Amino acid sequence: MGLDLIILGAASATPTSNQYTTAQLLKMREHYFLIDCGEGTQKQLRRSKTKFSRINHIFISHLHGDHFFGLVGLLSTFHLLGRTSPLTIYGPPKLKDIVLTQFRAAGTFTSYPMHFVVTQHKVPQVLLETDSYTISSFPLKHRIATTGFLFKEKTLKRSLNKAAADAHGVPVCDYHWIKEGKNWTSDEGKEVSNDLLTFDPLPPLSYAFASDTMYTPDTAEYVKGVDLLYHESTFCEDKNERAKQTMHSTAAQAAQVAVEAGAKHLLIGHYSARYTDKRQFEEEAKAIFAEVFAARELCQYSLLQSGIKVKSVVPDKDEK
Amino acid sequence: MGLDLIILGAASATPTSNQYTTAQLLKMREHYFLIDCGEGTQKQLRRSKTKFSRINHIFISHLHGDHFFGLVGLLSTFHLLGRTSPLTIYGPPKLKDIVLTQFRAAGTFTSYPMHFVVTQHKVPQVLLETDSYTISSFPLKHRIATTGFLFKEKTLKRSLNKAAADAHGVPVCDYHWIKEGKNWTSDEGKEVSNDLLTFDPLPPLSYAFASDTMYTPDTAEYVKGVDLLYHESTFCEDKNERAKQTMHSTAAQAAQVAVEAGAKHLLIGHYSARYTDKRQFEEEAKAIFAEVFAARELCQYSLLQSGIKVKSVVPDKDEK
Repeated sequence: MGLDLIILGAASATPTSNQYTTAQLLKMREHYFLIDCGEGTQKQLRRSKTKFSRINHIFISHLHGDHFFGLVGLLSTFHLLGRTSPLTIYGPPKLKDIVLTQFRAAGTFTSYPMHFVVTQHKVPQVLLETDSYTISSFPLKHRIATTGFLFKEKTLKRSLNKAAADAHGVPVCDYHWIKEGKNWTSDEGKEVSNDLLTFDPLPPLSYAFASDTMYTPDTAEYVKGVDLLYHESTFCEDKNERAKQTMHSTAAQAAQVAVEAGAKHLLIGHYSARYTDKRQFEEEAKAIFAEVFAARELCQYSLLQSGIKVKSVVPDKDEK
Repeated sequence: MGLDLIILGAASATPTSNQYTTAQLLKMREHYFLIDCGEGTQKQLRRSKTKFSRINHIFISHLHGDHFFGLVGLLSTFHLLGRTSPLTIYGPPKLKDIVLTQFRAAGTFTSYPMHFVVTQHKVPQVLLETDSYTISSFPLKHRIATTGFLFKEKTLKRSLNKAAADAHGVPVCDYHWIKEGKNWTSDEGKEVSNDLLTFDPLPPLSYAFASDTMYTPDTAEYVKGVDLLYHESTFCEDKNERAKQTMHSTAAQAAQVAVEAGAKHLLIGHYSARYTDKRQFEEEAKAIFAEVFAARELCQYSLLQSGIKVKSVVPDKDEK
């Protein structure tokens, strides 16, 4: 059990012949969430062998093209594949109009219901809450209205320690009370405390996505104590001024946010095409925050309570 | 001298992990014309090593996503590359609104002037005419308003036969009259006919793009005598009924149009993803029209007066 994050695109501004712009697939508690959708995201989803029908929620951070130009193509492909289950899209107010204008021009209406949830860019906002997780947005500081997204698992119920239950002579018909957290009383009136009959649930995990944004101490406040923080790092320190002008961050600033937030791990990405070697980002961030990974496309970052595991999601010789 | 056509995408409906939807780059008389622009076209242009700044005219056949979902991304990249020269986009009425809505949402205005020319889908229309070529649109028969495009070179001026001019004693200062088609008269009053002093220009070439469309005899009328006809062939004969329902063509129907038009060569494409082997299309078309090629992505089809040469535009080991 853990969170799996597949990086579909980690380049900024424009795709190049072998790099894609921002898109990520988060798998949390058996649910799939697509975060941003740069041009060609559907190609990367296919390469990562993702089942399209498992995606029911798409989150768009802002309306710069490198974060959503692949959306209408993906929605159109869902339609052509005959999807029928509802899809919810979370994003800035104008997103709905952009999508519907294109479907209308094609004279097409999707085979599935499409719901739009408008994100607020000035205050944090709970977007989706279930028994199992909460997903919210929070303001970022960029040239246009932009939000980050915070994905938080909820604590699961305690799970039965079957060996202990047997040892205390608990009959199977009482298991469901124990799983609800109740103590158990035997026919003889002996009470056994619930914590002797159950295991602690695994601590819940959390993931925060913050792109695009310049450094602001507010970000750390919004994602306090997060297990994994993805923070854009468009530039290295040599382009500190350029980062400021364009309202982007450097790798060092991303690391600074991770420190201030008390994050456990940091993933950086949204690289400017002027850097060919991504290690420079990693090194500059590492000088400030040790637990850093430089995002690589078509790699999966599996967040566990014990740490992070990284693996490629495509066979070595596959096209990227 | 000839027309070069690079196939950037030849798949229909949706891109797959290694195939792109419709886009073609035509090079005619030193000018570059982009025809349709499916998602990921900018990636394919990069792979074909095309200089983006040489594209000044983009033609969009219709507003089904597989023919234009890559357009706004490409326009955005032009902007990010600092383009300043004007760009003209030819397409259906709603295209302008679709493009501008997205730029407005990003708070961006392009660094270059963008002109939109609205195509008519009920009558043929000259879109662009210079001394060197004429480009026009013509109606196709599809589920929404769709046009084909016809690119016709004009006959060049006769070129000087320098050896003949020397033999007749023509002084250099009279060359320009001869190139204009005038006869030449010597100081002694001897007249030499222009055709003895000049070479015939190469016959002008023409290319027609017809996608998407069902079979209609009108298409042949619009492209009569064309040197190279690209005609969609979404299906093979086994899906003849499906072709009719969706208003697409089979390979045999594409070949039939080539016969009726008296085309010299036929290129077929816009393949349905249900066919893995493209040779089936080629074989079915060849039974009706011999000079057929099944379009392959990232291949260049060079149309010369003597025939067609095909070559890949990417090194063998490059990603596709």
